Amino acid sequence: MRWAVLLAGGSGTRFWPLSTPQTPKQLLPLSGAGSTAEEAVERLTGLIPRERVLVVAGEALAPRLRALLKLPADNFLIEPRAASTAPALIWATWEARRRDPDAEVLSLHADWAVGDAAAFRRTADTALVTARTHDRLVTVGVVPSRPETGYGYIVPGAPLDGAARTVARFSEKPDAATALDLMAAGALWNSGLFAWTARRLLEEVARHTPEVAGALPRLDAGDVPAFFRAVTPLSIDVGLLERSDAVAVVSGAFAWDDVGTWQALARVRPKDPSGNVLVGAGVLQESHDCIVWSERDPVVLCGVKDLVVVQANGRILVMPTERAADMKQLLDALPPEVRDIGP
Amino acid sequence: MRWAVLLAGGSGTRFWPLSTPQTPKQLLPLSGAGSTAEEAVERLTGLIPRERVLVVAGEALAPRLRALLKLPADNFLIEPRAASTAPALIWATWEARRRDPDAEVLSLHADWAVGDAAAFRRTADTALVTARTHDRLVTVGVVPSRPETGYGYIVPGAPLDGAARTVARFSEKPDAATALDLMAAGALWNSGLFAWTARRLLEEVARHTPEVAGALPRLDAGDVPAFFRAVTPLSIDVGLLERSDAVAVVSGAFAWDDVGTWQALARVRPKDPSGNVLVGAGVLQESHDCIVWSERDPVVLCGVKDLVVVQANGRILVMPTERAADMKQLLDALPPEVRDIGP
Repeated sequence: MRWAVLLAGGSGTRFWPLSTPQTPKQLLPLSGAGSTAEEAVERLTGLIPRERVLVVAGEALAPRLRALLKLPADNFLIEPRAASTAPALIWATWEARRRDPDAEVLSLHADWAVGDAAAFRRTADTALVTARTHDRLVTVGVVPSRPETGYGYIVPGAPLDGAARTVARFSEKPDAATALDLMAAGALWNSGLFAWTARRLLEEVARHTPEVAGALPRLDAGDVPAFFRAVTPLSIDVGLLERSDAVAVVSGAFAWDDVGTWQALARVRPKDPSGNVLVGAGVLQESHDCIVWSERDPVVLCGVKDLVVVQANGRILVMPTERAADMKQLLDALPPEVRDIGP
Repeated sequence: MRWAVLLAGGSGTRFWPLSTPQTPKQLLPLSGAGSTAEEAVERLTGLIPRERVLVVAGEALAPRLRALLKLPADNFLIEPRAASTAPALIWATWEARRRDPDAEVLSLHADWAVGDAAAFRRTADTALVTARTHDRLVTVGVVPSRPETGYGYIVPGAPLDGAARTVARFSEKPDAATALDLMAAGALWNSGLFAWTARRLLEEVARHTPEVAGALPRLDAGDVPAFFRAVTPLSIDVGLLERSDAVAVVSGAFAWDDVGTWQALARVRPKDPSGNVLVGAGVLQESHDCIVWSERDPVVLCGVKDLVVVQANGRILVMPTERAADMKQLLDALPPEVRDIGP
């Protein structure tokens, strides 16, 4: 049967001061009325039933996720520590197989904005079919809409069938010129949407990922904390997909965004005729290409452009949109009493 | 005896959203710890005692002014309507003379920032002495520190004595080139700091200001509302000083600012090494020449310049400092539910 694994961890810094460690972006209604985590589960409707959606997250987020997502209680897999994506996905795949020896797994993240849910499901279905048909680990490559330097790229190789190709290589976060070249050459964004059979994934892990494979007997012994103590944190891309020959890519032509910075709201939210995004009350006068989010006070902009203006959690942030990607450095430089937002 | 007349009216739009009709700028601690109105009274210490400081304002501000200024109750002259400076000053001068037939009057505004109170008092003293000695209406001209286009200028004429000169002409709000020329030619800012004997002022009004002089019998009859109904609103400059030959100018070399816009805070408040003014909590990172005023939430700026950022009265305002002078047009364009701040 088909299972989904939803990665719902996250540190909550990207959308400061709106996001906090207790309410990171996947719990916020960044792209619409619901949180991206709720939208992620909703988007699977008709493809994978809710009782087979597993959610991986840390203890801090568990109560909020349980309340939001309304999944069976034992579908929440609580990581004893954050160890990047390889241990999380391998554990969740191991768990799916424990419940269902013939499990097929679709892996996705809880913080995406997706423009066309039906296209997303069609592509995910193709990826799952490809995973079984070709007995490969399948990564979905999203057709790029811009030469984004913040994403990884997949360069497809030889066709496997009408829908799938081998992977020639991965290219992680290229510079701007390389991103343009990659896009022109037909490379795809490495979205993090994966499909595999649990059996095949675990075979490939045994072959290529000793940092995690060596700890799997702890899971067999029922000791998840010991598993997490024993693994080396690494990403599934670096730890497995870039090492394995049994990888395939299926391309997806839906709008996809990981909503990584305040600037992303300009892509995933409706804009006024001057290119502004306004969430909350406000009046944007003679202003263009601004992103305004106010939890409480009406915001009045007059004669400004390319600004992020946020009021949330008792803080006000004003920065150029082009600086939104520097949020981590900004937060590192803030005094704790301004930076740290209590639960 | 010497009397002061403090003009304390004002509509409360210039420092929106901090200023309101109930709390216009003269009631706000714009330039320091106390309101400019309190500072105006305090600045007279040693020159004119508090029991001879008359305050002219509208009914809306009276309760706040009485509480702040702690002057005798009947020193507050409450205008039944706003009618610009000529009716207000002529009424207050008439009232000073009613209480003291030999009254000398120093007229000033409640919303000034003055850099050197002792120099201010010395100049005011000279102006009062000049008014009596030469039997003239004396205007204090402040030595300009920049070619400001928002002020009026006084071009001095022939010397009357070591301290005073006649007035060759007034030049109201010149364009930038004219302001430079005026400054180079030794013109002075028309501050609104005036001195006269009550007798002489009323003589000159009878001669030159029929718009108000015709209504004076209503004051003699004790009917202030009738006086204000009968006068034509006009400024003391246009209505009298520009018409009279009996005017003198005394120059003042103190820092003087009418704190007319948010941008003025950069002149009257201490700045950090990057030229920012911060009132309230905040962190200004890689930002320069900004003016930040927050009543409640810490404000974090990152990588911006030349911005005004204000949180007050449940509103947030962000505009370039150069647009601060356009506040009235901005407010006219705001929907009432955002613009209007309740008492």
